[in-house]
Amino acid sequence: MNKDNKVNAAIIIIGNEILSGRTQDVNITFLSKWLNNIGVRVEEVRVIADNEQAIVNCINEVRKKFKYIFTTGGIGPTHDDITSRSIAKAFNLPYGYHKEAYKILEKYYKPGEFNDGRKKMAKIPDKATLIYNPSSGAPGFIVENVYCLPGVPSILHSMVDGLKNQIIGGKKILSKTISLSTVESEIAQPLEDVQNLFTNVEIGSYPFFRLGKIGVSIVIRSTAMKQIEACANQIEDFVRKKNIQIIERE
Amino acid sequence: MNKDNKVNAAIIIIGNEILSGRTQDVNITFLSKWLNNIGVRVEEVRVIADNEQAIVNCINEVRKKFKYIFTTGGIGPTHDDITSRSIAKAFNLPYGYHKEAYKILEKYYKPGEFNDGRKKMAKIPDKATLIYNPSSGAPGFIVENVYCLPGVPSILHSMVDGLKNQIIGGKKILSKTISLSTVESEIAQPLEDVQNLFTNVEIGSYPFFRLGKIGVSIVIRSTAMKQIEACANQIEDFVRKKNIQIIERE
Repeated sequence: MNKDNKVNAAIIIIGNEILSGRTQDVNITFLSKWLNNIGVRVEEVRVIADNEQAIVNCINEVRKKFKYIFTTGGIGPTHDDITSRSIAKAFNLPYGYHKEAYKILEKYYKPGEFNDGRKKMAKIPDKATLIYNPSSGAPGFIVENVYCLPGVPSILHSMVDGLKNQIIGGKKILSKTISLSTVESEIAQPLEDVQNLFTNVEIGSYPFFRLGKIGVSIVIRSTAMKQIEACANQIEDFVRKKNIQIIERE
Repeated sequence: MNKDNKVNAAIIIIGNEILSGRTQDVNITFLSKWLNNIGVRVEEVRVIADNEQAIVNCINEVRKKFKYIFTTGGIGPTHDDITSRSIAKAFNLPYGYHKEAYKILEKYYKPGEFNDGRKKMAKIPDKATLIYNPSSGAPGFIVENVYCLPGVPSILHSMVDGLKNQIIGGKKILSKTISLSTVESEIAQPLEDVQNLFTNVEIGSYPFFRLGKIGVSIVIRSTAMKQIEACANQIEDFVRKKNIQIIERE
């Protein structure tokens, strides 16, 4: 659908707690929006277990398919935090104390409090570049095109700003949303006709139930605002002809 | 880690709106918990685009790797709803009006309201078994081990009950959570020692920030409650020795 030059990415959520349903993931939404804003389109997400083989296989598959890979989770001090070790294995790199990470953590903790658990967080694949952590010390890291971030959302949020200059996005993906007081089947045909006219624009249709009202949000996405506006005009044309109320334009 | 006989599953979330960050997915958590309860362990989740090739490739890969596959999204009436067509292609099945689905929808809508958009929802791979929809008519469907459900959470919830008898789970996965007033690095070593003693039990460690308090939740999972309890006792032993406060047992 989108023939513009795309910079793509995949997000890999590492954690049994998401797979069991215990924890509601919120990192996908955060990272997708953040990447979208710097012109990187997330094309796939995977949630995988805290299992070395699963991580190695997944990383080695996706890092060849996508320009950027972002992982979340598994870089803490406990036995189930095996992301660093697994990434080292995927890239066939030595895994041990990373000098710079060790120094950062040694300085972060009070004397006597830099225990073995905390030292483990300095074990990072050899030659990895660090991603600094302004909120809790322990850094993330980058190996080639794989960016490893923590799973705790507030810590992750504090770290991504430092990444902005390292990621080269394409054109920013822009969007417009038109929310209608209708049901999808009423507009399916004319909407498809508009989509067929605008092959560089992605049109999504999403039913909603909000404040007791049912409706449909039409989301138009492209890197070219002119295309989005031309497309929105065509949609508003058929909407007017069908006497459908526009609830909101965003 | 888990040597008990496992029945596994993958969840495939189909939808650009999740990949763009526009919509926060809640179906992963719901389906994972529901499956967990009937003895099915979700081992992987993927979020993929509304793109025929992406869907075909993904389905043909995962359906061989996992016992059950659940898809959500893309079975509505609009042009971006391409799950049914793509599943037909993945299985090399004819795609057209499914007699039973057509009858259900014809009966569901008032005379004159069964328009082309609605008719599209009766287009389902040939020989698929239907998943009935008590809340909005349009059925989901099953092809071999692939179960296709809608993306709208409330409709999805209303449909899964009808699936219970069709899915043969293994032993139910049980769990116990012990929440501690500590930080992960304080307990990393003794927790790893306990994990090494109990190879049939999965121990996860999750830091939390709740009501202004920091703490760690230890989640113990297994199909055998006796193992979980023995494991919990060992954890409580070292917790007592370290004078760590137990905030909650669940």
